[in-house]
Amino acid sequence: MRRVYLDNNATTMVDPKVKEAMEPFWGDKYGNSNSLHQFGAELRSVLRDALDRLYAGINAGDEDDLVVNSCASEGNNTVLQGIYREVICQSARDHIVTTSVEHPSMRSTCHFLESLGVKLTYLPVNNQGVVSLESVKEAVSDKTALVSAMWANNETGMIFPIREIAEIAHSRGALFHTDAAQAIGKIKVDAREVEADYLTFSGHKFHAPKGVGGLYIRSSAPKVRLIYGGEHMGGLRAGTLNAPFMIAMGVAMQLANEALPYEAGEVRRLKDKLEDALLAIPDAFVVGDRNLRVPNTILASARGVEGESLLWDLNKRGIAASTGSACASEDLAANPILSAIGSDEELAHTAIRLSLSRFTTEEEIDYAIETIPRAIKRLRDISTSYAAVQNEQE
Amino acid sequence: MRRVYLDNNATTMVDPKVKEAMEPFWGDKYGNSNSLHQFGAELRSVLRDALDRLYAGINAGDEDDLVVNSCASEGNNTVLQGIYREVICQSARDHIVTTSVEHPSMRSTCHFLESLGVKLTYLPVNNQGVVSLESVKEAVSDKTALVSAMWANNETGMIFPIREIAEIAHSRGALFHTDAAQAIGKIKVDAREVEADYLTFSGHKFHAPKGVGGLYIRSSAPKVRLIYGGEHMGGLRAGTLNAPFMIAMGVAMQLANEALPYEAGEVRRLKDKLEDALLAIPDAFVVGDRNLRVPNTILASARGVEGESLLWDLNKRGIAASTGSACASEDLAANPILSAIGSDEELAHTAIRLSLSRFTTEEEIDYAIETIPRAIKRLRDISTSYAAVQNEQE
Repeated sequence: MRRVYLDNNATTMVDPKVKEAMEPFWGDKYGNSNSLHQFGAELRSVLRDALDRLYAGINAGDEDDLVVNSCASEGNNTVLQGIYREVICQSARDHIVTTSVEHPSMRSTCHFLESLGVKLTYLPVNNQGVVSLESVKEAVSDKTALVSAMWANNETGMIFPIREIAEIAHSRGALFHTDAAQAIGKIKVDAREVEADYLTFSGHKFHAPKGVGGLYIRSSAPKVRLIYGGEHMGGLRAGTLNAPFMIAMGVAMQLANEALPYEAGEVRRLKDKLEDALLAIPDAFVVGDRNLRVPNTILASARGVEGESLLWDLNKRGIAASTGSACASEDLAANPILSAIGSDEELAHTAIRLSLSRFTTEEEIDYAIETIPRAIKRLRDISTSYAAVQNEQE
Repeated sequence: MRRVYLDNNATTMVDPKVKEAMEPFWGDKYGNSNSLHQFGAELRSVLRDALDRLYAGINAGDEDDLVVNSCASEGNNTVLQGIYREVICQSARDHIVTTSVEHPSMRSTCHFLESLGVKLTYLPVNNQGVVSLESVKEAVSDKTALVSAMWANNETGMIFPIREIAEIAHSRGALFHTDAAQAIGKIKVDAREVEADYLTFSGHKFHAPKGVGGLYIRSSAPKVRLIYGGEHMGGLRAGTLNAPFMIAMGVAMQLANEALPYEAGEVRRLKDKLEDALLAIPDAFVVGDRNLRVPNTILASARGVEGESLLWDLNKRGIAASTGSACASEDLAANPILSAIGSDEELAHTAIRLSLSRFTTEEEIDYAIETIPRAIKRLRDISTSYAAVQNEQE
């Protein structure tokens, strides 16, 4: 059966070049990079190269830290739990400002910090799915320890005004963190240009394997730690280095940045082609101005068609899509971002996310354009709620 | 050049069968196992199989949790930081008992907890490198939240009386944790037989890749968490599942257990052969009764020969050994376990650890037997301290 993967915001395939780069390290290059002997030593220069690629990839400074860890969830936890220990417990600042549409690893950790007495502000988003700078300004005070906002939203692909939010945070003496998991590989991510104090990312969102991520810590920002132990990663993250995955992520980062023009050109063209076809369906909507989104993401809604039902229908036809964050896909409630932007409740159950990658082909998009409208028609034909809508309109 | 790897307690090579089991998941089986579509669904049954192998491997009960995470350092942090939150902050118990020879990920996290006001007792070890049950009994009280002792020591290979320690902990209402990273694949590890409440391990110590580990949580024990977020691993560990490594660790666990008779027979025979050859060197010592050790580990000392120097000399001849935990190998101080067991300071600088695996060959051991005594002689010939010792003896 045909397999068309349009769920690249959930996870991506490993780039064959990345796979190739890891290959020698499943064989006889298996030493512990902390060991003094040859088996350890032969890893150290390749790991340095990998780190160099990662530093270059997000434009980290030599004086900054870039901690390789196991995923963006770990990175986000490290920042939030670290700020709690290093700032909130040590100063009069007891407040964190974030958005209402962050990844579950941010949201759950914020809830955990609330249970410890930390004050949280969750900023709402506008009908484009983005927080307004006015709301950030209003929320941030001299009691704010950290402001955290994602670089790009996982569900809508909307790009947040990170640089301006960082500026507001810094103007009140607060630190700034951004979860860039959905930005790297889609748009240019420059940690220093936006003046992030912390930036987290996940390799498997840009064609590295699952199980490796990164945490950037600006040199001037307090060091944050989650896993204590050996002196790996400059003492910031214990655990024997996963050399193959570090190497993989370094190569993947470089390839992702090299592919950015292709992403902005060809991937966007294919995405727009699909988006235009969806918008041609009556009572169909796409969230957010396409010029303010990453090039690969469509969050679409078709009135009268439950997202789940459409997902299953497409799955039968070989198309993989999503109703939202895979990290919350066991939860069949209304799509949180559609609720957040104020869609009516019926529409909030209709969202489907289609996310492309640089490996998506025109043929695949053409197949999706042929298949999705038919699926929507089929589901509407058996929908009592959509029939009711049409009767009202008549 | 010949390469003889005798540092398997630092890390092991990936078993070729384990590499083979991962292979399909670098290719087109790359879905996110939380996704509802085919790309996600096709992973779920293999991940269940992998979990089944892990449960069976340590004899976890169906009702128990077995959380796959990134390493034993993460597991140890999860237990200690989790017990702090779930027990110490919630009850009158504010005390943790552990040993003075645990892995850095235990030691550093304990130090961190001390900074939060937790009371710690670090039990000394006897001249065999093992804690006495009397000292455990004396230390544990009704204020003790957790007793933690490693199953086997990483440096000496000495097996700790885990079952008896657990019994003492439980008799005072305390929980019991064991770091089994150095036991799995060397001796039978049965979590339920020893009545562990928590048990941590690391895949790369038994021929799975680096970057994956496990945390067993007995059904009756408080749930502990470190990385909050999505509902992965039953809500106990957020982060997209690293499917290839979970599968790898499942296969590695099964292979390790199947190889236990070989480990107890052939690996021990080769280890004993090497150990006997070392003991034939004048003024050479091996720590701990060989019958109370895991089959693969020798911590040897040769008076007058610095561990570091011997390590470098052997490295030049292709033999990889260690002066102790790789997680602390940048620290050139005296070997902590030799200090802990009360060796004199000069001897504490002479330790070298040799650790075999089921891939170690007789030819490699014969080469080591030929090479190590010569290296020791060479180094003693240029040692002023050893010359002094000999003069005293004359």
